[in-house]
Amino acid sequence: MITPPDDSPTISCDAEDDPPASAPPGPLSATQQAEVAEQRAEATPTRRVVAPALEEVLYQPIPVLDRGFIRVVDYMGDDAAVVQAARVSYGRGTKRVSEDAGLIRYLMRHRHTTPFEMCEIKYHVKLPIFVARQWIRHRTANVNEYSARYSILDREFYVPAPEHLAAQSASNRQGRGAVLEGAEAARALDVLKDDAARAFDHYEELLNEDAAGNVMDPGRQGLARELARMNLPLNTYTQWYWKTDLHNLLHFLSLRADAHAQYEIRAYAEAMAETVKRWVPITYQAFEDYRLGGTQLSAAGLAAVKRMLAGEQVSQPDSGLSKREWRELMEALGRAP
Amino acid sequence: MITPPDDSPTISCDAEDDPPASAPPGPLSATQQAEVAEQRAEATPTRRVVAPALEEVLYQPIPVLDRGFIRVVDYMGDDAAVVQAARVSYGRGTKRVSEDAGLIRYLMRHRHTTPFEMCEIKYHVKLPIFVARQWIRHRTANVNEYSARYSILDREFYVPAPEHLAAQSASNRQGRGAVLEGAEAARALDVLKDDAARAFDHYEELLNEDAAGNVMDPGRQGLARELARMNLPLNTYTQWYWKTDLHNLLHFLSLRADAHAQYEIRAYAEAMAETVKRWVPITYQAFEDYRLGGTQLSAAGLAAVKRMLAGEQVSQPDSGLSKREWRELMEALGRAP
Amino acid sequence: MITPPDDSPTISCDAEDDPPASAPPGPLSATQQAEVAEQRAEATPTRRVVAPALEEVLYQPIPVLDRGFIRVVDYMGDDAAVVQAARVSYGRGTKRVSEDAGLIRYLMRHRHTTPFEMCEIKYHVKLPIFVARQWIRHRTANVNEYSARYSILDREFYVPAPEHLAAQSASNRQGRGAVLEGAEAARALDVLKDDAARAFDHYEELLNEDAAGNVMDPGRQGLARELARMNLPLNTYTQWYWKTDLHNLLHFLSLRADAHAQYEIRAYAEAMAETVKRWVPITYQAFEDYRLGGTQLSAAGLAAVKRMLAGEQVSQPDSGLSKREWRELMEALGRAP
Amino acid sequence: MITPPDDSPTISCDAEDDPPASAPPGPLSATQQAEVAEQRAEATPTRRVVAPALEEVLYQPIPVLDRGFIRVVDYMGDDAAVVQAARVSYGRGTKRVSEDAGLIRYLMRHRHTTPFEMCEIKYHVKLPIFVARQWIRHRTANVNEYSARYSILDREFYVPAPEHLAAQSASNRQGRGAVLEGAEAARALDVLKDDAARAFDHYEELLNEDAAGNVMDPGRQGLARELARMNLPLNTYTQWYWKTDLHNLLHFLSLRADAHAQYEIRAYAEAMAETVKRWVPITYQAFEDYRLGGTQLSAAGLAAVKRMLAGEQVSQPDSGLSKREWRELMEALGRAP
Repeated sequence: MITPPDDSPTISCDAEDDPPASAPPGPLSATQQAEVAEQRAEATPTRRVVAPALEEVLYQPIPVLDRGFIRVVDYMGDDAAVVQAARVSYGRGTKRVSEDAGLIRYLMRHRHTTPFEMCEIKYHVKLPIFVARQWIRHRTANVNEYSARYSILDREFYVPAPEHLAAQSASNRQGRGAVLEGAEAARALDVLKDDAARAFDHYEELLNEDAAGNVMDPGRQGLARELARMNLPLNTYTQWYWKTDLHNLLHFLSLRADAHAQYEIRAYAEAMAETVKRWVPITYQAFEDYRLGGTQLSAAGLAAVKRMLAGEQVSQPDSGLSKREWRELMEALGRAP
Repeated sequence: MITPPDDSPTISCDAEDDPPASAPPGPLSATQQAEVAEQRAEATPTRRVVAPALEEVLYQPIPVLDRGFIRVVDYMGDDAAVVQAARVSYGRGTKRVSEDAGLIRYLMRHRHTTPFEMCEIKYHVKLPIFVARQWIRHRTANVNEYSARYSILDREFYVPAPEHLAAQSASNRQGRGAVLEGAEAARALDVLKDDAARAFDHYEELLNEDAAGNVMDPGRQGLARELARMNLPLNTYTQWYWKTDLHNLLHFLSLRADAHAQYEIRAYAEAMAETVKRWVPITYQAFEDYRLGGTQLSAAGLAAVKRMLAGEQVSQPDSGLSKREWRELMEALGRAP
Repeated sequence: MITPPDDSPTISCDAEDDPPASAPPGPLSATQQAEVAEQRAEATPTRRVVAPALEEVLYQPIPVLDRGFIRVVDYMGDDAAVVQAARVSYGRGTKRVSEDAGLIRYLMRHRHTTPFEMCEIKYHVKLPIFVARQWIRHRTANVNEYSARYSILDREFYVPAPEHLAAQSASNRQGRGAVLEGAEAARALDVLKDDAARAFDHYEELLNEDAAGNVMDPGRQGLARELARMNLPLNTYTQWYWKTDLHNLLHFLSLRADAHAQYEIRAYAEAMAETVKRWVPITYQAFEDYRLGGTQLSAAGLAAVKRMLAGEQVSQPDSGLSKREWRELMEALGRAP
Repeated sequence: MITPPDDSPTISCDAEDDPPASAPPGPLSATQQAEVAEQRAEATPTRRVVAPALEEVLYQPIPVLDRGFIRVVDYMGDDAAVVQAARVSYGRGTKRVSEDAGLIRYLMRHRHTTPFEMCEIKYHVKLPIFVARQWIRHRTANVNEYSARYSILDREFYVPAPEHLAAQSASNRQGRGAVLEGAEAARALDVLKDDAARAFDHYEELLNEDAAGNVMDPGRQGLARELARMNLPLNTYTQWYWKTDLHNLLHFLSLRADAHAQYEIRAYAEAMAETVKRWVPITYQAFEDYRLGGTQLSAAGLAAVKRMLAGEQVSQPDSGLSKREWRELMEALGRAP
């Protein structure tokens, strides 16, 4: 978020409308829900292309994790816009649906990416800071984040659901193993909740301002917002407007909806994937067929497949593949290693 | 443009609809005009923000140079979307018009650029190749260009109007001087027209295919399109879909609508500026006030202004500025050098 | 940082070499200092251009804040490379030093930015996470960050020096006011230190692994690294390799070495500015003369200056400027408002 | 190329040193060869990493097409720099060669691209304009092109060698078929040569300046350079400095060294690939193994392979693949369709 000066229009924080920390009813306060409802109530005629299934959920928050959400706040183009750009056409540029689908699938298969850049989408996202730090690595996007230099953050932090509280993987240094249970799980949740609660208490004390915006102690000045925020933990929720084109969004999904992605960002990617299906169904189907559902064979992997198809018995040692590569190949081919 | 394979849906070139080379009636053929009219006739309700003044000209070609045009084919957001992103708001995020304008002007003045990236626009442009080569240097945009590998280009090339046929500037190695007159002007126009006509004749001969798509000589194979095109001159018209965000568009305009830009690309920038005024009038006004109409003072230029304001007589030699810098400063201040 | 798989080469964390939390001797451990010294000891002949003053400090950490640093780990090009690219020359492309400087200053004055993109520099930076979150917004750069999914972070966090422990500004919502004093300052420092220490203690407990890499409690599994990190506060130190070109680096410095930037990131920008002076002294001087030391006048501001130079008395109300704009103009001109 | 002003240092064009149009001895004039030799003669010690095999060819033009070339003019990093960045290390960060290679191969296999962005290379390229127009579509690069607004282009244009003068493909709208022969080939070469020669004659006439820089007719003013250039054909040679990082360079090579790329740009990509082998041999080998030599299977293609490996007879109609996809799959697997 940007920070207007002292003599600029006031930006109200609506802090009074936020749910009390003790009983969060859901990601949006009543005031926020009313604002969303008001946005959704209006419809205006446009000459632009419209994606009806996406309009249905426009502005509507889709819950992710315990207190986060995504919501589509604007979009531009649809499947036909991909075709239109690929044809550099004067009119709609589309033919029969089957022809358009054939062209879109051809473009996806042969990685002709520029026509997919002709569609654009904008999300409002509420997410924990540690997820935001992974997300922001995707550089071909536009971002406006809520500013904790200028405003005071809400008392909202992510605590994993019990089924996502996993141990460190023994085999994969950046993966998860079994779910924690019993006392260890309980203790972990307690630590996360207590430390976050204390950090927020101290954040307000440092600011010398409570959640309702009242000065706590008139005898103190209060630490600058840009400094006080450093006491908050990485599971604090932030929010941003995030805008990107369809090509870069699919690339984001291919990495972040993948099984290797951390669960918490994957949850966002999966919710976004549903909105993409509504927006550009033909493109999304092609994406599933040619990217998500397929596999990449290395030179040595391809050579091994050729030998196997020719009836040879091939084993890891004589395949030229490392143990790990061999295992990955057998998994991709649905065979026992 | 992208090139579907042999078994993909056919893309018709509509070559038969193009105006005959002898008597071009204007930038669009009758078929193309009908396609545009059909696009403009439909209106669909949307929950998205709509920019009414821009909708008025949506899809409508705006002529530029002798046979080029720009036309807006899609857009996303408006002035309110800038405000909404700057406030990371749940609802419309806008206040009274005067407050919104104040915030937009604040953002422009202090170069807070990210909220302006939240609006996006897409143009269909027909332009000479030498202009396209300057334009494409703006990298933060998405482009789909008509492919001369895949398709055959139309017989259309740019010839300057007599008043733009200028001599080389004597003082500025990349500028123009006086307008050419008389025999020299006539000869220049003849050369440009004749060479382009001959190049196009030979292009068709190399392709072994005339403008109507007929084989010219059944005894020849015809040179590949990707090779034959190399015979065409740089004033040949091409076309593309070009999409960018508002921040990058304003940056484009600040460089290309500037007096130092070559006239031919400036003509495009000026036509685009009119569409931006329709789209985001408050932002455009702020852009004029804080960018186009202002000036940048160097450290030495600022020091000279301070001395002048203090009543000193300052001359170039004791200003620390080079002759050229001094002249530029005096021009900016509206004073005699 | 990237995370190799189980059967990939081991990446040792050198955790045993890190300074004990109780008595940090400085930003680098003895082992790290030895590694840096080894890098600095070698010199190899190259045909590339060399920037001798930058070579002097190559690899050398320059302390920033209480436990951070920057160090240049590689670079490409120098002032002559800017000239060479601007001339698209076959050889060195440089003339007399005065001519080269004149060209560089011309390029800077007229915002011909592409030749400055032809120089590249790479830094290794250790910085608090809340600074990293501001920094990463500069998208035209390459980044490899130490991964807390894969590795365990060191017990290092930023605590402001007493003179930087400032109150919230009353006039600027994102600025700092007076320095805190007495009990309020002492309490703020205690809170920051205690909360960070507790968060780190709990981080190790959650991981079930102490700083020396030993399992703490064999009866527990330990929470996955990618989850445990969420308990850490935003003043935790992280580190990354960051690479960018000279044009984008100067843009970064113009925003982050500015008085409006938060002190903590400004401290990094100022340290980097010193390395840029060593690397490309002519370019840096031009940058100071035409960017840092100058000012931008708006259309209305320029009009006011013209009237003042013509001898008129101009006041805010009849200037067309807002109060804030008028105050900023008077400050820029060194006059009383 | 950038255009200094009237009072800036003169940039000599060395036009007098260029080979006469009648008998071009090769891509470089004697003066240019001397400049290159001078660059190559010097060696200076550096603390940076050095790639010895690349230093051997530094600055040396490698001929491409009839009058073009590429030459490496600067670079930053090597294979070890990839490892160093992936490890965010303080020192060299490299281990045994086998471990480093294992890490690089892991990064390539799993598309961890950021460490490859930590190496940078800069080329000086001379190329026909129609090739430059394909090339510039790669946006994540820095470019300085010779300016025909500011300078006068040399009389150099590309004419295909007889074995590259191909007919249009009958099956692929953007491909080449059989090589032209006999009278058709001779006529095509004549047309290309004659039209280019005439265009250059007229270019000089319009400029009113011959190749030696002499005014041709004192009675004429001469057309502005920025206008006269529009008469030149798309096979005219231009040149630029082009700089990119290793990741983006490999992406460029994967598209442009591919059999589907137009021969003329492929010739450049193949020459560049040789320089990459010298620069980062381990990375290049991994690139060949995991990208160039492998193949991508779609979801349906993978299903077909699984069925075949299970002993089923699979044919196109029951595979769910289109005819074209089936043919491509059979080709990739080395089987008869």
